[in-house]
Amino acid sequence: MAESAYKEMWEKLNLDIDAHEGLLEVLGKFYGDIYLSQQGRLQGAEYLDFVLSEVHGLRIKELQDAKAQGRKIIGSFCVFVPEELTLAADAVHVGLCSGADAGTEMAETMVPRNTCALIKSFVGFKLAKICPFTESCDVVVGETTCDGKKKAYEAFAEHVNMYIMEVPQQKNACDHDLLRAEMKRYMEELEKLTGKTIGVDDIKKGIAIANGKRKAIQGLNALRKADPAPISGRDALLINQISFYDDPVRFTAKINELCDEIEARIEKGEGVAPKGTPRLLLAGCPMAVPNWKLPYIVEGSGAVVVGEESCIGSRNIRDLVDEDATAKATTVDELLDLLTDRYMKIDCACFTPNDERLDNIADMAEELGAQGVIHYALLFCQPYSHEAFKVDKTLQAKGVPMLAIETDYGMEDVEQLKTRIEAFVETLES
Amino acid sequence: MAESAYKEMWEKLNLDIDAHEGLLEVLGKFYGDIYLSQQGRLQGAEYLDFVLSEVHGLRIKELQDAKAQGRKIIGSFCVFVPEELTLAADAVHVGLCSGADAGTEMAETMVPRNTCALIKSFVGFKLAKICPFTESCDVVVGETTCDGKKKAYEAFAEHVNMYIMEVPQQKNACDHDLLRAEMKRYMEELEKLTGKTIGVDDIKKGIAIANGKRKAIQGLNALRKADPAPISGRDALLINQISFYDDPVRFTAKINELCDEIEARIEKGEGVAPKGTPRLLLAGCPMAVPNWKLPYIVEGSGAVVVGEESCIGSRNIRDLVDEDATAKATTVDELLDLLTDRYMKIDCACFTPNDERLDNIADMAEELGAQGVIHYALLFCQPYSHEAFKVDKTLQAKGVPMLAIETDYGMEDVEQLKTRIEAFVETLES
Repeated sequence: MAESAYKEMWEKLNLDIDAHEGLLEVLGKFYGDIYLSQQGRLQGAEYLDFVLSEVHGLRIKELQDAKAQGRKIIGSFCVFVPEELTLAADAVHVGLCSGADAGTEMAETMVPRNTCALIKSFVGFKLAKICPFTESCDVVVGETTCDGKKKAYEAFAEHVNMYIMEVPQQKNACDHDLLRAEMKRYMEELEKLTGKTIGVDDIKKGIAIANGKRKAIQGLNALRKADPAPISGRDALLINQISFYDDPVRFTAKINELCDEIEARIEKGEGVAPKGTPRLLLAGCPMAVPNWKLPYIVEGSGAVVVGEESCIGSRNIRDLVDEDATAKATTVDELLDLLTDRYMKIDCACFTPNDERLDNIADMAEELGAQGVIHYALLFCQPYSHEAFKVDKTLQAKGVPMLAIETDYGMEDVEQLKTRIEAFVETLES
Repeated sequence: MAESAYKEMWEKLNLDIDAHEGLLEVLGKFYGDIYLSQQGRLQGAEYLDFVLSEVHGLRIKELQDAKAQGRKIIGSFCVFVPEELTLAADAVHVGLCSGADAGTEMAETMVPRNTCALIKSFVGFKLAKICPFTESCDVVVGETTCDGKKKAYEAFAEHVNMYIMEVPQQKNACDHDLLRAEMKRYMEELEKLTGKTIGVDDIKKGIAIANGKRKAIQGLNALRKADPAPISGRDALLINQISFYDDPVRFTAKINELCDEIEARIEKGEGVAPKGTPRLLLAGCPMAVPNWKLPYIVEGSGAVVVGEESCIGSRNIRDLVDEDATAKATTVDELLDLLTDRYMKIDCACFTPNDERLDNIADMAEELGAQGVIHYALLFCQPYSHEAFKVDKTLQAKGVPMLAIETDYGMEDVEQLKTRIEAFVETLES
């Protein structure tokens, strides 16, 4: 993965070249073991391999080229940050590195030990100077979705130009008002940053691009109802992960192509695992690149993953901005209303109550023909750890078994997880 | 503490009589060791002893009598729930049990293991049926100040009639609007519950009572600037704890009396520890009854506690509702605005940023003549654990040493804490 041609760029970004080289090497090996070893992979997976191999190379080069043209780069860690507005400002919207143990010791000088791996990861990546995305950003947009991130951003702001967007915690009228005000504030921040006045057509363009990306993944997810499963959970997760990194127009075109290939495969009755292989839905915390630990273990345990109920999964693509209403809208205010309506539908565990999520998980399990659900919470993630109890109860009432897992990015518990997951899969087969 | 005359009342409240008896016995012993053993205690501490000895007895009887008269009982766990409005509705406002390990195993069937002791405590008290306050409540008002409580309330609501009040996370205009809307919603909820229409004079009465209580504790805190310290940190904490339980008018009168006694003591140059004893400020998480662990250890380590920067401490009493503006107000809306203004000043770690808290701690340390600060975070409390880093930085810049402690309600770490605190106190003496 490491291209020496990019070294100059990484040096300009003030990365720690040796540490970064080490990271890319580990990642390359990890990717080979988990992805390239798969049997019966789709032709279109070449796109995934290419994007991953160039994630710190060509993609960063593109960001630098965009900057050279005067475009701004916005980083974020959350599906609440409205990409539509970033795109409307002709800025680039990228997810930031938070899926690997790196710089953990350094991170623990700024955030408590009892902080989830995702947060320690982004703090660590920054302090260890190994994330070219963070270094490319003009602004990083944080949000208030959980205590851990909310407070870690205060520390992060000592190193990065941060902007904080507030996300409400209930779904009453005053919450809608708050998010609507925050949409406007973010838009104004973008206007200040870019010097561009955002107009109706700009937002419509942003909505079209973001909806297009969502529809591509919705299409992919619909195809995953087929048995045999036409794509591995690992590859589907990777597609969701890449949706946060790659250029959205290119991504959409490539995933639509991939879906055509999947359709042909389904017609032929082909898949990545035999028909009748136990099908599992993963639900819970986001798995950021390169956190492929759980689907890798699951798919090595005799099951296939058919869905991801997570921010890097269905939570990010379930709801579109209303397309008819967008077409009819004639003012920025109307469009901000539509965006707010869409974002208030997100079933993040930051909301109380969050019963929509319970319904959505039960519906997904049914639609995708999943025989069981694995609830995945990062250790110390309070919102999702708490909801695991409610999800379990909901699924029990529907007769769908659930296994609750809490883990981090370490590899120490892989064997233990494997044992538990294999035992869970066996109960589904009987 | 256990009065058999109350047994019938506890049975009616459906308490587990044996478990409750056990709790009272432990509490009584604990109180004797920590409180009654103190030398040179104030005469007025008799009030504290009496309230504590009757906290599950006479006070519960009062609540039952109030209920018999048609008054409603409102329980809460947070200083954001506006007592002024509860009082305006002629309802009783009480804090609920959350300061002791009880029913922890039962609690862990509903909330994650990695949850702070305070939350596990209130869930455990309910499941173990040993909190007569919770059982007396018509409604428990929860809030969204931290992920742990926010999500635990969802589980708690399966056992208790809950109402959730949203607290914003920033201090922009839209946050003020949100809290203002929540004030109104809470008022309307009280009107529904009590069948009473809340008018201008009702709220003014509520404000007068709540401000009176705050001014009494402000007066106490001002007297604690004296050296020798005229009251122990343990007793001062107890006063703050009792402020959440006892009748507010009685409490205010008793504390004002106690302050008169303290003034006389200061004039005579008397105190609970010799002049020059190292003075410490405790800052961080609330210590709910009967969580006296830290001040007990500190005051057994050669230091005296001179302030509590916490919700059960200065955070609850620092800011008054504007009294001149209250006097002039002629509408309910104006009064709700004034309440909102007051509550938005709270420097809870739920806010981002929360720089006011840093300034307040530094100011308190200076005003109270504290030579050092102990930052206290409950294990797994993310907001305060994160802020510990910032508080440390702020105090370092002022030359005030800080010791960061994370602990729970268990006694396993007492010796270790004692060692660390003694070493910290020694550095202050040198």
